[in-house]
Amino acid sequence: MSHTIAGKKKLLSRVRRIKGQSIALETALEGEPNCMAILQQVAAIKGAVNGLMKEVLEDHLREHLGAENLSNEQRLTEVEDVISILKSYLK
Amino acid sequence: MSHTIAGKKKLLSRVRRIKGQSIALETALEGEPNCMAILQQVAAIKGAVNGLMKEVLEDHLREHLGAENLSNEQRLTEVEDVISILKSYLK
Amino acid sequence: MSHTIAGKKKLLSRVRRIKGQSIALETALEGEPNCMAILQQVAAIKGAVNGLMKEVLEDHLREHLGAENLSNEQRLTEVEDVISILKSYLK
Amino acid sequence: MSHTIAGKKKLLSRVRRIKGQSIALETALEGEPNCMAILQQVAAIKGAVNGLMKEVLEDHLREHLGAENLSNEQRLTEVEDVISILKSYLK
Repeated sequence: MSHTIAGKKKLLSRVRRIKGQSIALETALEGEPNCMAILQQVAAIKGAVNGLMKEVLEDHLREHLGAENLSNEQRLTEVEDVISILKSYLK
Repeated sequence: MSHTIAGKKKLLSRVRRIKGQSIALETALEGEPNCMAILQQVAAIKGAVNGLMKEVLEDHLREHLGAENLSNEQRLTEVEDVISILKSYLK
Repeated sequence: MSHTIAGKKKLLSRVRRIKGQSIALETALEGEPNCMAILQQVAAIKGAVNGLMKEVLEDHLREHLGAENLSNEQRLTEVEDVISILKSYLK
Repeated sequence: MSHTIAGKKKLLSRVRRIKGQSIALETALEGEPNCMAILQQVAAIKGAVNGLMKEVLEDHLREHLGAENLSNEQRLTEVEDVISILKSYLK
């Protein structure tokens, strides 16, 4: 993941937002939920998770595949790791 | 949302799973995160949010658009509500 | 599908655009393809298919679930049909 | 794109399948289309485009980011190219 302090803080704030959104959704569902409001909250969580996914992947590509001083073997391993992750992200 | 007790319980357990996953991800990011593990945790959250989205929508369609005794006007309003939600879900 | 002439024309023009894009991509691949150009053409096809999917679904919801004069049984069948389609669209 | 003959053939056969599917959909829409059949054909095209997108990206990552003998500057350019493509693929 983001190997810099600033990068890590940005990811953490995205993850905390998703946690906050799921707590708010839990509270809404425990009460007398308004259907459209629930559907919109779920859409907002989906958007937040997509945003996290893109940022985490972008950091990873920069730091791992952009890295200098990797052996060819290490680089090929990194490429295969990214491909396996992308297969689940692009479902 | 799910208007039955059983349906609401199922949604709640999905939302709590997402909350748990985001707390686990937060903890991992605060420590010394392993990159591939983080990428896989984000993929798992994405899968869980997609599952929630489908279930919430399925419940909504059954209970709102399958409802008897709606006036034509009410039904058209329900249809437009679903269309507006689908536009954000299908992004 | 769109039961109006105007609606059908709009869908047809979307489908023909996708056909045109796939023919252009085929031609590019048969020549000496530039990688980034190919990746962008595939992204454009994906966008066009998503647009078609949303429009086809929107038409369907309006015409089938918004329809007056359905028996309750017919309406429930329509709802289940939409749910089964949404499951594949929301993958 | 796939720099090998075998890889290019695989991509071409995927693209031709999408072309064939869009021609079939065009024909169906020009006649007396059955709604559910159309919705399913669109879902099939979406699946085929996703498959193409994954394969094209996988080839690209292997051949460009896995390449030996790139200067650091070239590698960073390749990484930024992939990131810009992923942003549109992960929408």
